[in-house]
Amino acid sequence: MPISVVIAVDAMGGENSPAKIISGIEKYSKLNKDVFFRIFGVQKILENEISKHNLQKDLYEIINCEEIVKDTDTPLSSAKKKNTSMWRAIDDVKQKRSNVIVSAGNTGALFVISKLNINMISNINKPALAALWPNQVGMNVVLDLGANVECNEKNFEDFALMGAALHTSLYPTENSKVALLNIGSEEIKGHETIKKAYQNLENKKNQLYEFCGYVEGNHIMDGNVNVIVTDGFTGNIALKTAEGTANFISKELKKALTKGLIAKLSSFMNIYNLKKFKNRFDPRLYNGAIFLGLESPVIKSHGSTDDIGFTNSLDVCVKTVNGKLIDKIKKNIIL
Amino acid sequence: MPISVVIAVDAMGGENSPAKIISGIEKYSKLNKDVFFRIFGVQKILENEISKHNLQKDLYEIINCEEIVKDTDTPLSSAKKKNTSMWRAIDDVKQKRSNVIVSAGNTGALFVISKLNINMISNINKPALAALWPNQVGMNVVLDLGANVECNEKNFEDFALMGAALHTSLYPTENSKVALLNIGSEEIKGHETIKKAYQNLENKKNQLYEFCGYVEGNHIMDGNVNVIVTDGFTGNIALKTAEGTANFISKELKKALTKGLIAKLSSFMNIYNLKKFKNRFDPRLYNGAIFLGLESPVIKSHGSTDDIGFTNSLDVCVKTVNGKLIDKIKKNIIL
Repeated sequence: MPISVVIAVDAMGGENSPAKIISGIEKYSKLNKDVFFRIFGVQKILENEISKHNLQKDLYEIINCEEIVKDTDTPLSSAKKKNTSMWRAIDDVKQKRSNVIVSAGNTGALFVISKLNINMISNINKPALAALWPNQVGMNVVLDLGANVECNEKNFEDFALMGAALHTSLYPTENSKVALLNIGSEEIKGHETIKKAYQNLENKKNQLYEFCGYVEGNHIMDGNVNVIVTDGFTGNIALKTAEGTANFISKELKKALTKGLIAKLSSFMNIYNLKKFKNRFDPRLYNGAIFLGLESPVIKSHGSTDDIGFTNSLDVCVKTVNGKLIDKIKKNIIL
Repeated sequence: MPISVVIAVDAMGGENSPAKIISGIEKYSKLNKDVFFRIFGVQKILENEISKHNLQKDLYEIINCEEIVKDTDTPLSSAKKKNTSMWRAIDDVKQKRSNVIVSAGNTGALFVISKLNINMISNINKPALAALWPNQVGMNVVLDLGANVECNEKNFEDFALMGAALHTSLYPTENSKVALLNIGSEEIKGHETIKKAYQNLENKKNQLYEFCGYVEGNHIMDGNVNVIVTDGFTGNIALKTAEGTANFISKELKKALTKGLIAKLSSFMNIYNLKKFKNRFDPRLYNGAIFLGLESPVIKSHGSTDDIGFTNSLDVCVKTVNGKLIDKIKKNIIL
């Protein structure tokens, strides 16, 4: 089968790497023979890890890098080390040897090194960090999640476009419906920047998506809209608050379902439904944040995810390339 | 028993009012004979409703007001009608006939009419809207939730003080631990205003509370801090996102627990634990937002709550008065 996508993998970042990275590649590679992996990291460690797995030899290559970006490194100190697996993997995309880069390492470092190496798309002022977030009928793209603490109206317009391009790349059969996250649904609510962005998005019609106005926090998961645009401060807090709420509820639920013999017995009886419920909220399904705004997609896998989570972020890599994410952004830019 | 607290009740606001208001007063009044209710609303309707209940005659008084603030009224149009049950109840506190006012009506109107009538506490620049939010060990006070879209560092300091005063009034045996809601726990994270507020709160030690730095969205419910300070835009979105997440999960959970005979049977077996779980998340327990910064507490009951929810907001009324909320704020003001 001819190769359709080449992924540059920083194999050394995140908890339990490179074990989970190699295992994730094996899982993905078994089902997708048209994807080639350029794996960046310490050769000896990688060879030892690969020897425990069953990777098809013509579907990967190891590129030896002795240095590693640590979780404790600052973005600036990381940006000085040009022989790390992270830097070299990003550079590989810049040199057009790979189509997309993925790392489970230090987020700040990944962001800064990507910005240093890969050009911004013309007329996009700021890159944004997007993630997937479940709703009642499918999946939302939410951005920005922390790259830009303060945003102007042009940034919001760019985020709308980039978020919609990502959404249609990942879910090509669905219509992208963009909304601005706000504290009310009326036009007069919110701060000046968001009101201006609303007016601009209303006025400049776009072929890529439908603009649906404002959405409030309690309606993010309703499924009426699927691209949620906000500034990096608000988006980060909203996403983490949702995470915290889900964790809190699941802890209490676990108590209710396992405290005492009757509870355990009744949960065991209903195991099929409960497993389905649990899978619905498996964070590994939503693994993979995406830096948007650069000339190449940069995918961030969660540092604490496992091999299954990493496999899902490889799926995001391939879909952004096959879905022509970057072309979609360029063609639909609002000037 | 001598009367210790007089509550001015706007009986005409919110869904299914005044039925739930009168029923809520009856429930509260049965257990608390030292609280007197001055009930504002259309006399005939109130008398008819009261005739269905068992209210002790010397514990309430009806004050006839023919006009009502509707949910669809704008704050400005409501502020022109001075004979509404809402306006008159607020004025009652201003005239010092009542100690505290509660309404389940139009939030914007309640806020504007309260600001028009009741003086601000000296040296507090902006009032804030606070609410209760469960955490793993007890309850958080979170503010601001929408009164102030944009805030400066002095506002954050005021919110810290007012939130802590509210927290110790409601939970006098606990220590108040204040944190600023931010996108990271390091000192360098976030926007300029929040960094300045952090420095000021670090420098000005306060007897009322301990300042614990920043808290991220995913740690709001951990219980390590219990007064969460943020601007009205972020706070509103965080609270509503948590609500939306909880609703989404509970819908999916309900499906898992009731889909099919086995699921129903097993849930029935475990009914005791599941009820306890459900009660833990009953939003009626957290009913009652509080406007802080005025010379009197103003309590907002949720428009869609029922009589039990309204009873809980009466409890908040009494605790803010008995806990000397306003005095606590005045004594601890940071200049």
